[in-house]
Amino acid sequence: MTSLDDLPIRDDLRGRQPYGAPQLEVPVALNTNENPYPPSDRLVKALGEAVAEVAGSLNRYPDRDAVALREDLAGFLNEDTPGAGLTSRQVWAANGSNEVLQQILQAFGGPGRTAVGFEPSYSMHPIITRVSGTRWVDAHRDEDFGLEPARAVAAIEEHAPDIVFLTSPNNPTGTALPLEAIEAVLEAAPGMVVVDEAYAEFRRTGTPSALTLLPGNPRLIVTRTMSKAFAMAGTRLGYLAADPAVIEALLLVRLPYHLSAVTQAVARTAVAYGGELLGNVGRLRRERDDLVAWLRGEGFAVADSDANFVLFGRFPDRERVWRAMLDRGVLIRQVGPPEWLRVSVGTPEEMAAFRTALKESA
Amino acid sequence: MTSLDDLPIRDDLRGRQPYGAPQLEVPVALNTNENPYPPSDRLVKALGEAVAEVAGSLNRYPDRDAVALREDLAGFLNEDTPGAGLTSRQVWAANGSNEVLQQILQAFGGPGRTAVGFEPSYSMHPIITRVSGTRWVDAHRDEDFGLEPARAVAAIEEHAPDIVFLTSPNNPTGTALPLEAIEAVLEAAPGMVVVDEAYAEFRRTGTPSALTLLPGNPRLIVTRTMSKAFAMAGTRLGYLAADPAVIEALLLVRLPYHLSAVTQAVARTAVAYGGELLGNVGRLRRERDDLVAWLRGEGFAVADSDANFVLFGRFPDRERVWRAMLDRGVLIRQVGPPEWLRVSVGTPEEMAAFRTALKESA
Repeated sequence: MTSLDDLPIRDDLRGRQPYGAPQLEVPVALNTNENPYPPSDRLVKALGEAVAEVAGSLNRYPDRDAVALREDLAGFLNEDTPGAGLTSRQVWAANGSNEVLQQILQAFGGPGRTAVGFEPSYSMHPIITRVSGTRWVDAHRDEDFGLEPARAVAAIEEHAPDIVFLTSPNNPTGTALPLEAIEAVLEAAPGMVVVDEAYAEFRRTGTPSALTLLPGNPRLIVTRTMSKAFAMAGTRLGYLAADPAVIEALLLVRLPYHLSAVTQAVARTAVAYGGELLGNVGRLRRERDDLVAWLRGEGFAVADSDANFVLFGRFPDRERVWRAMLDRGVLIRQVGPPEWLRVSVGTPEEMAAFRTALKESA
Repeated sequence: MTSLDDLPIRDDLRGRQPYGAPQLEVPVALNTNENPYPPSDRLVKALGEAVAEVAGSLNRYPDRDAVALREDLAGFLNEDTPGAGLTSRQVWAANGSNEVLQQILQAFGGPGRTAVGFEPSYSMHPIITRVSGTRWVDAHRDEDFGLEPARAVAAIEEHAPDIVFLTSPNNPTGTALPLEAIEAVLEAAPGMVVVDEAYAEFRRTGTPSALTLLPGNPRLIVTRTMSKAFAMAGTRLGYLAADPAVIEALLLVRLPYHLSAVTQAVARTAVAYGGELLGNVGRLRRERDDLVAWLRGEGFAVADSDANFVLFGRFPDRERVWRAMLDRGVLIRQVGPPEWLRVSVGTPEEMAAFRTALKESA
């Protein structure tokens, strides 16, 4: 039998493990920052109808540029961030924000180029970076998981990266960045600056989006996803906002017809039902704030969170706690700095189960 | 206003144009080798229902490994090629065969590595290769668009490629390769051998599939698509068959959750309705053979075709002929060697329109 080691894979892939949280069947899954509220019956029906409507011409290739969907997404962003004033020419979409990020790396990174990120952060950033042949430099977040502008600028001046990754709110810590930090990075960076806002809709009141910085900053890219607040993880739709020239660059590397007619139809329906889908965001934010307060009350260290998850600790043996929770039917995530665990915000019932299990496990 | 030239894109992308045939609204579109027969009302209904069934849990991530779909595809391949004896562990799927090919390049190519192809062939092969940072070498097909095994072997010995691309039936020429050519390449190649069989279901009786060569050849990868014979171009589902170790390698580079729950449901439904979808393949093959005979009768040079398109010529000014056809509402493709044009096989009505327009245009 042939083993992976027998095959001529790229040398830098040898010994690597596939990325991904364990996909386990458990009563309470709080490990991948999904939105716990499923689509309503009304939306389920609308999604089926939307697909049936395009199904009659599935023998044809889809709109390669997904123009109608990009218009819809621009409309959503203009509601999300008043004053953004985006048009479809400034919006691009792909199969999950991972594919959006990969296209950015393919266009602006590559062999001989460097990307800088500040870890702990979204673990796909270094993976996608390296798979694209780009060098990854981790310039580290501060001790409190924030990012002091002067230190970020110093790291950029040291490494002169072609791409800088900022994540706000940051995964897995939940930390949002002040606009001043992003502006300082934009000023210093010689290349592209990507602000990954996968969790932006969960940010606390008064926390701004980097979308407001787009005018006059053609090297800024803000990425978003429908997997979290939009409750559409199963649809795999990520998108970005940037200068139209950035999207021209991505057209040079995107796989033609990358976004299926079905995905376009489903995502457009989700945007049309945005009021319903995002209707649970307020509830999840309150649940998150309650969770942070409860964890602190129990004596845990807890990172401030603007996202739909909370990082808490510290556990000298987090593996043991994680497994004890799993034994009680509650799946959380071992990710980020050692001694910390991450829990997604679920329904009130799920959070009650989490609290009970944690008390028994910690 | 910022232009693409103002942005720090990769140097090797400068001056490039986005890939893609013009997407024009025309009465007769014979330019992208789509299957002209749309899904039946019965299948349209089933597709809507299949999506409605998964829509209720779209807030959750999909099965990251798409196991059920891969089982279904293995079943289809075992029907297509009796004796293939494939299991789901030997099948992998992604958003179009382009993404499958990209994953292969990411796992087995990359900076410092080389891929060899034989052009004229599928023009995405060199594009995906270069975007992945892999060097592309064109070792050319023979004058008659075939591939003489001894010459192919010599090219492989000269360049020692990490990846060899074979395309059978070849796009845009329609030429199928004899198994002996593929076997000779497998024997000589130091790395992976990809046989792109996007059009395999249209092959003439007696033309074998490279699937039969998989046993004992862990470096062979056979790629397929649902875009052509399966009449599902809008679904974007490509797949491959290979040794299970190859799929383990692809897991190291695939974007997690790359295949949406919706795509998995739609593709599974399409496989279940394979009898209906593939029911038009026989008709398209006969239409193709009639087309080849008619073109030859009219005095054109025509490449033998095992696909659902025909390459014909020769036109000292093919741009003029292409445009005159377009003026008559018939969109064909300028692709492949100079002086040749490619036409997809459509319905009898579409082919009648093609014949009329060509007589007026050539």
